[in-house]
Amino acid sequence: MQKILIIGAGRSCTSLIKYLLQHSVSENWQVTIAEKNTALADQKIQDYGNAFVICFDVFEDDSLTQTVEQHDIIISMLPAPLHIHVAKKCAELGRHFLTASYLKDDIKVLDEQFKKAGKTVIMEMGLDPGIDHMSGMKVLDTLKENGHELTGFETFTGGLLAEESVGDNPWKYKFTWNPRNVVLAGQGICKFIQEGRYKYIPYHKLFKRTEMIFIPGYGYFEGYANRDSLVYMNIYNLIGIRTLYRGTLRRPGYCSCWDVFVQLGATDDSYEMENVFKMTHRQFINSFLSYNPNDSVELKLAHYINLPIDSDTMFRIKWLGMFEDQLVGLERGTPAQILEHILKKKWTLQKEDKDMIVMWHKFNFLDGGKLRQIESSMVALGNDHLDTAMSKTVGLPLAIATKLILQNKIRLKGIQVPTKKEIYNPVLKELTTLGFDFNERETTPTE
Amino acid sequence: MQKILIIGAGRSCTSLIKYLLQHSVSENWQVTIAEKNTALADQKIQDYGNAFVICFDVFEDDSLTQTVEQHDIIISMLPAPLHIHVAKKCAELGRHFLTASYLKDDIKVLDEQFKKAGKTVIMEMGLDPGIDHMSGMKVLDTLKENGHELTGFETFTGGLLAEESVGDNPWKYKFTWNPRNVVLAGQGICKFIQEGRYKYIPYHKLFKRTEMIFIPGYGYFEGYANRDSLVYMNIYNLIGIRTLYRGTLRRPGYCSCWDVFVQLGATDDSYEMENVFKMTHRQFINSFLSYNPNDSVELKLAHYINLPIDSDTMFRIKWLGMFEDQLVGLERGTPAQILEHILKKKWTLQKEDKDMIVMWHKFNFLDGGKLRQIESSMVALGNDHLDTAMSKTVGLPLAIATKLILQNKIRLKGIQVPTKKEIYNPVLKELTTLGFDFNERETTPTE
Repeated sequence: MQKILIIGAGRSCTSLIKYLLQHSVSENWQVTIAEKNTALADQKIQDYGNAFVICFDVFEDDSLTQTVEQHDIIISMLPAPLHIHVAKKCAELGRHFLTASYLKDDIKVLDEQFKKAGKTVIMEMGLDPGIDHMSGMKVLDTLKENGHELTGFETFTGGLLAEESVGDNPWKYKFTWNPRNVVLAGQGICKFIQEGRYKYIPYHKLFKRTEMIFIPGYGYFEGYANRDSLVYMNIYNLIGIRTLYRGTLRRPGYCSCWDVFVQLGATDDSYEMENVFKMTHRQFINSFLSYNPNDSVELKLAHYINLPIDSDTMFRIKWLGMFEDQLVGLERGTPAQILEHILKKKWTLQKEDKDMIVMWHKFNFLDGGKLRQIESSMVALGNDHLDTAMSKTVGLPLAIATKLILQNKIRLKGIQVPTKKEIYNPVLKELTTLGFDFNERETTPTE
Repeated sequence: MQKILIIGAGRSCTSLIKYLLQHSVSENWQVTIAEKNTALADQKIQDYGNAFVICFDVFEDDSLTQTVEQHDIIISMLPAPLHIHVAKKCAELGRHFLTASYLKDDIKVLDEQFKKAGKTVIMEMGLDPGIDHMSGMKVLDTLKENGHELTGFETFTGGLLAEESVGDNPWKYKFTWNPRNVVLAGQGICKFIQEGRYKYIPYHKLFKRTEMIFIPGYGYFEGYANRDSLVYMNIYNLIGIRTLYRGTLRRPGYCSCWDVFVQLGATDDSYEMENVFKMTHRQFINSFLSYNPNDSVELKLAHYINLPIDSDTMFRIKWLGMFEDQLVGLERGTPAQILEHILKKKWTLQKEDKDMIVMWHKFNFLDGGKLRQIESSMVALGNDHLDTAMSKTVGLPLAIATKLILQNKIRLKGIQVPTKKEIYNPVLKELTTLGFDFNERETTPTE
């Protein structure tokens, strides 16, 4: 009997746990869920006899050692900065290890140790990073094998609200993933390469420099650049490519409205504001506007963003309750923390809400001197506020990879990200059977 | 014989060294200049018999100990982060210590040690911080003593180019102080309080939210807010004041043009750009603009900043050589480092150039229920590119304070900033005799 340990049982783990439990009997697995909130974990294991819940704290070293030791493969769904504690233990004790988080240097240095132990680590094995790597590499590798010269790769992903759940929400958006990450999205410098020119976008211009993207059957989306695309030259083996651009998708109009918060400085996470305990939504917005006792906050904001007071953008800000005299409800906080807290009042998924994942790639290549273009897209829908598209697309790649490692079908040792055929081929194949497939079509390149 | 040690002999030390040497015979002082570049220091001591130059490296601990031990009072003109090495040694060995830099926590913790040793430390004893503290506190204390309720204090300082040296330079600006600080000016969050409301300006809006300030005899200047004004509530003993605003002065038009670099992201110091060794000025600017092979960099920039291509702002950017195909001339660098390097080609003081210091305060107070307002200003001019107004206004307060400590006229022990009468009264008095005096006038408060 092979033993699987899942650390965490939050919303993002729903599909992961479900898949592993469903296969646990036929595959002869024991599945343990380690979680501080054992009641939450108990709900998820249903009545599978080979599933267990243990109360767990990653900072209790003895218990961590013991727990890791008792399992063959460990999937960490902890917040990204905590993975390293588990990874070190897995390297030491020789256990397989998987996460959906970005591979950082702290874990990278454990590569030799995992190789010596003959164990497999797969990082970035979720949606984005994860399915983006796999679906992108599959096309890139095929184009190369066919002798084509790659000239461009653009890839965008978005976690959105399904059209049917939009209702009267003018943003057509709610938090379907970590709200804090949504508020801080895009901070730091954004780098990419376009037609051989390195390009840099500062954060305060990011949400103005969007691209429109069309996805058959779903219409238009807007995309903004996502941090450092240049690192993917190495990861995707695309040194010398003329265009490489990685981005995030939103519904049209979102970015120009979000930009209002960026322009105000309301997404700043670097300092705590004064007197937060008695601050109202309205005062929060007013803190970033000039003093002028003769003008309303609405008028000052409209002037600041250079738009009419009855514009769609102003309506979206008002819809969020930003001009209300309601208390924020925090004792203290940075602008970003306060903004997140206010947004949650309107942007929290309701029971019946369905989310949606959209992924889109564009590949450009030379075929005998002629420029050609392929666009590829995947759309996934959630069932409700717990069984989300996000939970499926993050959890299923991890679950499938876990199965393939235990079945000895993935034999790569040491630290991997899913850019190799041995990983992406079988995982994508099974994802397709589960309904997560890519729609590929050749389109006309824009010159 | 009392022994003075000056660490550093760079441009900012000219007036400091000159003053101390001029008084050294009558006061019976020995003056030592500790500097790596002994040739530079040799020039400055002229033929004073009681002046010595020693070769010095702050990181050689034994030599630091020995040098500090041999002197009664130490003035550090090192870069601000290095003061702590000297300060610790002075605390240990019991020596007076002075700098023109901001008092930070690392030095603050040495207070008890200095008090026990019965020694005086004066930090922030230059221009800004320095003369601003002293001239501001003098008026603030007087108003309080007269029973007036303070409602507002605004204070602005600028290091500028004298009108007569402006020539055809459309920016009317050159580097008269550390160029790196000019390029990075304003980064981080800016906080102040206005009419009892806390206000926050993000960096990307700072150079748009300027104030016009009139100084009799010198015309208009523009001011932008300078970092965290709120900390001055404590420093100036102004808890409860309704308006407190600290800023930097430039000539009109500077800020909106400098804002072009801010909007581009060209002042970012957080990442290194690609291929700097072969980058031209023009490519540097183009890196921040969208790819568009049909438009010139000039046209793209004009569009980006939403101004006509023949606007004054575009002319100023062009005058700097920003659109030239000339190589930057650096092997590597952040945007801020590259921008600084390009700017130095046009903004370095020439031999005959004179700089100018402008300081302006505005005090608001209630006099028997009536709102009154006093404006106070000081203007200082440099003689040439070495004997600058900056060197005088930074160096003379330090020099005068050194004399007053050695004459036992300043007896405060432990760590001080010059906000106390015992320091500011005699220092301001002597500065006035040296020609650095404030023009004070009552003006009509704007309601």
